[in-house]
Amino acid sequence: MKITVLGTGGGARAHIAKLAGLGHEVHVGTRDPRATLARTEPDMMGTPPFKEFLAEHPGIQLHTFGDAAAASDGLVINGIDGHNAVAALSAIADRLAGKTLIDYAVPFIYNPDVEHPWPTPWGIMPKLEPVDTDSLGERIQRALPDTKVVKSFVTQEQTTVVDPKAVGDGDHTMFVAGDDADAKRQATELLKAYGWTDVLDLGPLVCARGMEMYAHMHSAIAFGLGQQFGGHFGIKVVR
Amino acid sequence: MKITVLGTGGGARAHIAKLAGLGHEVHVGTRDPRATLARTEPDMMGTPPFKEFLAEHPGIQLHTFGDAAAASDGLVINGIDGHNAVAALSAIADRLAGKTLIDYAVPFIYNPDVEHPWPTPWGIMPKLEPVDTDSLGERIQRALPDTKVVKSFVTQEQTTVVDPKAVGDGDHTMFVAGDDADAKRQATELLKAYGWTDVLDLGPLVCARGMEMYAHMHSAIAFGLGQQFGGHFGIKVVR
Repeated sequence: MKITVLGTGGGARAHIAKLAGLGHEVHVGTRDPRATLARTEPDMMGTPPFKEFLAEHPGIQLHTFGDAAAASDGLVINGIDGHNAVAALSAIADRLAGKTLIDYAVPFIYNPDVEHPWPTPWGIMPKLEPVDTDSLGERIQRALPDTKVVKSFVTQEQTTVVDPKAVGDGDHTMFVAGDDADAKRQATELLKAYGWTDVLDLGPLVCARGMEMYAHMHSAIAFGLGQQFGGHFGIKVVR
Repeated sequence: MKITVLGTGGGARAHIAKLAGLGHEVHVGTRDPRATLARTEPDMMGTPPFKEFLAEHPGIQLHTFGDAAAASDGLVINGIDGHNAVAALSAIADRLAGKTLIDYAVPFIYNPDVEHPWPTPWGIMPKLEPVDTDSLGERIQRALPDTKVVKSFVTQEQTTVVDPKAVGDGDHTMFVAGDDADAKRQATELLKAYGWTDVLDLGPLVCARGMEMYAHMHSAIAFGLGQQFGGHFGIKVVR
């Protein structure tokens, strides 16, 4: 399949590399391809320049967000950070029409006044916006009424999403939510190709609220396990 | 031990019955004991009158909130609903001083305009207040500076909290958070007496935010499993 990943950060790269490894034709979208390729320093998260990643993964095609979306034959993964996702996706709504968009972003508001913008044992935690009575997934769906939005991947580090067997031999649970059953089936098939054996359909896209709000619990569990800045664990629904 | 449970609802009764079964002297607090004993009809949740419960569990002592708190020799479980907890507990702050208070409430705001005040597959979900940048657990701790507040039990139905082996033979995870290590040890010992084998300390009480916000995910999972109004599943941290 021709699958598009929007974004070039660490999470997006996990999907790009995995999808290429599975034999898909992978198209990657970025705001400004020339600027992305010109970067020679790691970003603020320590992620190496994208040019180095491309050199290690030949055959991957880098485009603008819109051209990348248009290149997909049905499936698009949103790896644009939660803060910028609605604006960036709204601008290419016509290129995403009719397609399935899997969104895994958490809408954290970064606070430049704190040293670490992530939850810490001493209590500095970022804020979610929206939260509780709305979700980023629902906002994206409202901005893209002709696109089938599925919320998934969000309860887990993307490195584990694409390699579930790295934790507990894969004996944990991934979730999908969305208002279109076919789109959720597509997302579930992709997850099974990634190695997931337990994919739970939570129901309509409103359940994206619970998935996004789980981010605080995910971070707390990571800290509880002594795994700061990138947990390496899974959540299994035992029934 | 002399252990106090504040509240007479379904969740509180699960703890009362279990603690009595474990041989503890259980003291129960209610706003107005005479009114509680006068009730002859099930409440809005379908819970039978407390008088019937007392008849089935002889030896349990019913008091006002304050007298029940004073009767405990160290451990108090808060089963007052999230909406009323801060006011009710603040009024008896002196009786709770020096004690460990385990709080499992979720601060849902009920919306009288919707038929079912719980999340549903069609999108009616209650609102949390506080949420994200504060939690009920932290509010209770601020209202009771001389009490050691532990947030726990909150990620699970109380019937499963007191009987973890009823789900997956007990192979799932319970969480504690709080600012006092001794109080968390007390809560963990109680959980082990209940049958829990995996109790994860998430860290300081700020982690109550994640636990309370997990309520949306818990409800979504319950609906995803087809278990409406009282899930029967566990969450295991796989690592």
